[in-house]
Amino acid sequence: MTVKQLTLPELTQACAALGVPGVGLWREPVREYGTEAAAKLVRDAGLAVTTLCRGGFFTAIDRAERAQALADNRAAIDEAATLGTDTLVLVSGGLPPGSRDLPAARERIADALGELAPYAGERGVRLAIEPLHPMYAADRCAVSTLTQALDIAERFPAEQVGVVVDTYHIWWDDQAPAAVARAGEGGRIHSFQLADWTTPLPAGVLNGRGQLGDGAVDLRAWRERVDAAGYTGPIEVELFNDALWARDGAEVLSETAARYVQHAL
Amino acid sequence: MTVKQLTLPELTQACAALGVPGVGLWREPVREYGTEAAAKLVRDAGLAVTTLCRGGFFTAIDRAERAQALADNRAAIDEAATLGTDTLVLVSGGLPPGSRDLPAARERIADALGELAPYAGERGVRLAIEPLHPMYAADRCAVSTLTQALDIAERFPAEQVGVVVDTYHIWWDDQAPAAVARAGEGGRIHSFQLADWTTPLPAGVLNGRGQLGDGAVDLRAWRERVDAAGYTGPIEVELFNDALWARDGAEVLSETAARYVQHAL
Repeated sequence: MTVKQLTLPELTQACAALGVPGVGLWREPVREYGTEAAAKLVRDAGLAVTTLCRGGFFTAIDRAERAQALADNRAAIDEAATLGTDTLVLVSGGLPPGSRDLPAARERIADALGELAPYAGERGVRLAIEPLHPMYAADRCAVSTLTQALDIAERFPAEQVGVVVDTYHIWWDDQAPAAVARAGEGGRIHSFQLADWTTPLPAGVLNGRGQLGDGAVDLRAWRERVDAAGYTGPIEVELFNDALWARDGAEVLSETAARYVQHAL
Repeated sequence: MTVKQLTLPELTQACAALGVPGVGLWREPVREYGTEAAAKLVRDAGLAVTTLCRGGFFTAIDRAERAQALADNRAAIDEAATLGTDTLVLVSGGLPPGSRDLPAARERIADALGELAPYAGERGVRLAIEPLHPMYAADRCAVSTLTQALDIAERFPAEQVGVVVDTYHIWWDDQAPAAVARAGEGGRIHSFQLADWTTPLPAGVLNGRGQLGDGAVDLRAWRERVDAAGYTGPIEVELFNDALWARDGAEVLSETAARYVQHAL
């Protein structure tokens, strides 16, 4: 998503040329390209698929909507397995229209995971609950902190459900370092993503994630915390940023790799 | 600030006409009108000044900037005393340019309070730390949760330092209800403010606070929690909203009072 202006073949070629060993994919471009074909493309380039984004949106109250969400998540799990990644990232969903009950929304998220976790486990796919920044609590994700995400994940086996540690969403939280340690101890850090926090935020607050080093986040400190928690998996950089999307994708990818070395390695 | 389009005389007249018994004031319009004159104006209208907004911005590293901030806060305390309010609301400040160290910023906030709290106490003014939504952590307030605000406030006597409970900033936080109870038990709820959470957020995320009832916050549940915590002080409605500011101020005030009754009383 950081360089969504690139086609999948351009992306895999640019990653391979830079020595980036893996790539996180999103469902929409994968489906457009064909899931099997995308799997082969990435494999042939010598890359790993680090994660698939995204499942989730579990908070519907309406039974038909809920059934549709579960079916879509099973499809996402199947796609992840086809791509050869062990991790499906979940954006859990916010408040349904007219609802003001966040605790109930969180319980519906846990209920949905109860139905999906065994299905994922059978296919070798781990579900990774991503706590999203509290500014998304109403409309995208009722799970706002790493602690909350862990409280839900720990109801299930670690090989089925874990969490995403994304600096953009948790950097402000003084409880997050302890939650990182707890997640690591339980083997539940299923993905680690980097983005910087820059202000002012754009309208809608979706596409203002900062290039590494441009913002307020001490990225290296977070990388060291996640290291210290025992995490040895891939580190993704996930930037939603209109200014980066308007530039040459290969150049942005190269800049991002350099910034990673400079600010996080 | 909800109806900043009104002059102070228009505001006090409109409040008195509606039966609103008190009003929170901001320093800038008070200074323009004259602090003594404003105090007389509000008193003559039979209104209480519920709070003065705002002191704070304590996070400068530079010694001269820090000294200036402390001097400005002493002036704000004096103004609060002149206005006859017992509460000065604090927006504590974010990261200084180039810094990525939130814990250090929080310690500088506590240090500044150590210098200001006795000064405030001598003048009968309580300092109220307002935790701001985490989306403001970088640029406005490194204190992002009610728990953090209490952790700092509790270093000082309750009659000198407490907290602001503002639904806009804490509604998403599953730890906040317990923090409200803790704050009430310690006599540290020095202000209670209502605003609703509406999306999409505007660019800069400052002026999108929702009119009561328009958004995701269960306002009555928060009012009941604050009640249950033993709070008996004034309840303020603080909306920063471009659309409300563009309308007739007296009409907005009247609408806001009606919404309060409908959604929070």
